Amino acid sequence: MTDFSRLSLNSATTKKWTLAQAVEGCVAAGIPAIGPWRDRVEEAGLDKAAKLIKDAGLRVSSLCRGGFLTAPDAEGQAAALADNRAAILEAVALDTRELFLVVGGLAPGERDVVAARRRVADRLADLVPFAEENGVRLVLEPLHPMYAADRALVSTLGQALDLAVPFAAEAVGVAVDTFHVWWDPELKAQIERAGREHRLASYQVCDFNMPIAADALLSRGYMGDGVIDFQAIGTWVRDAGYTGDIEVEIFNQEIWDADGNTVLETVKERYARLVLPYV
Amino acid sequence: MTDFSRLSLNSATTKKWTLAQAVEGCVAAGIPAIGPWRDRVEEAGLDKAAKLIKDAGLRVSSLCRGGFLTAPDAEGQAAALADNRAAILEAVALDTRELFLVVGGLAPGERDVVAARRRVADRLADLVPFAEENGVRLVLEPLHPMYAADRALVSTLGQALDLAVPFAAEAVGVAVDTFHVWWDPELKAQIERAGREHRLASYQVCDFNMPIAADALLSRGYMGDGVIDFQAIGTWVRDAGYTGDIEVEIFNQEIWDADGNTVLETVKERYARLVLPYV
Repeated sequence: MTDFSRLSLNSATTKKWTLAQAVEGCVAAGIPAIGPWRDRVEEAGLDKAAKLIKDAGLRVSSLCRGGFLTAPDAEGQAAALADNRAAILEAVALDTRELFLVVGGLAPGERDVVAARRRVADRLADLVPFAEENGVRLVLEPLHPMYAADRALVSTLGQALDLAVPFAAEAVGVAVDTFHVWWDPELKAQIERAGREHRLASYQVCDFNMPIAADALLSRGYMGDGVIDFQAIGTWVRDAGYTGDIEVEIFNQEIWDADGNTVLETVKERYARLVLPYV
Repeated sequence: MTDFSRLSLNSATTKKWTLAQAVEGCVAAGIPAIGPWRDRVEEAGLDKAAKLIKDAGLRVSSLCRGGFLTAPDAEGQAAALADNRAAILEAVALDTRELFLVVGGLAPGERDVVAARRRVADRLADLVPFAEENGVRLVLEPLHPMYAADRALVSTLGQALDLAVPFAAEAVGVAVDTFHVWWDPELKAQIERAGREHRLASYQVCDFNMPIAADALLSRGYMGDGVIDFQAIGTWVRDAGYTGDIEVEIFNQEIWDADGNTVLETVKERYARLVLPYV
């Protein structure tokens, strides 16, 4: 019997499903955890979403996502802080400690990445006390450098760990999403460091499909369909002491168009064969 | 009068031009240097190409490109070494010291980036003596991580400098191509290091256009059309002591389809306004 006890479905993988359908799908497939996106939670209503997941006996591995902290103006910054505080409370309501942050890119017309990154650090400092009061960890997710301009100016695990330094490990963690970090020559060393610094908050898996999709956001694939070495990365994550949930998060038009239950079967098969043996 | 004395046209920018046309275009535009690709040189014939450029009074800022060093089998490795030795001799014939290397990606079906990178280091060690005998510098070009799988498993300037460590600065250098490295949080520090270690062999400029083109290779743009901060990067390159040529290398279908002389005028205008003031 394959052990699926650490497998979690990130709701973006079955994009067309409502939260209720995703929960039902997980239960039917024997997947014990879910990582919902906030739009799906909002659609269901927060209290109803929390009850739905709890009644089904699922864990919430993380909440996706807060962030977008790079607004240069006071109004934009206030709005970002308000939205992230709301996300922290949603994480509490959903009974997860881990709130993903995609930190945001350049402001419109801006080219100064150094200044934009400084604003990320400043907003993080603004948010941490509220996160700590609520027992939620802000999880910095380095995104692939191809998304640096418009989505996340945190592009490497080392950079995420550097940003986290001023804060307690319980307050600011980091995520390893294989799609975003597989290419990084520092990956092994930085995963080891994340373990040492007790900040490894999430392991997300999917593959990096080649050639890159025309919409670069959708180049994620089932584990095994792309170029990623899940044995190497899984081993590094395991050796760093990570024992938490493993989320499968795939943005891929073909997978989104497929039947959700069939998608979960493929996810389980690939997880069992390519991920689980090494974690 | 704008000083174009360091401007060089990388021949890929005017892709449809033969080498003779590119040389003629440079002379007409007052661009004193050219960085030819090997296919354009081969097309013209090596001796003829060298004479053509010399007779026109142009410098050759670099030769693009050798590399593709990651073959896993003896036959592929021998072929790669033979091709790179030929490229070294072509650089000599063209009277340039700088031979760009795009190191190559994963072998077909391969997922072990650590092993593939080790092969890059091994082949580099094989090539360096021949490069040194011929007075040619092998210039490691970090490519944007979106090309890691299929083009270059050297993705950051720091990694290129690490690879260069075993070799003399005259034998192995590094390139800063703004498109590939602008996002790197370590960029300033690694450009400083490249200067200290006397390995800064080329500064190539073009912009990073957003959204990323459907063919991710073609997302390069004229300086000013994308997100890159040429003031910051130019200043870092200058402060690192770089005084060599500045090549403009743009892969962009719209620019390729345009009239070459008009392209050179735009290149000069953007260079004068956005690049030159900081270098």
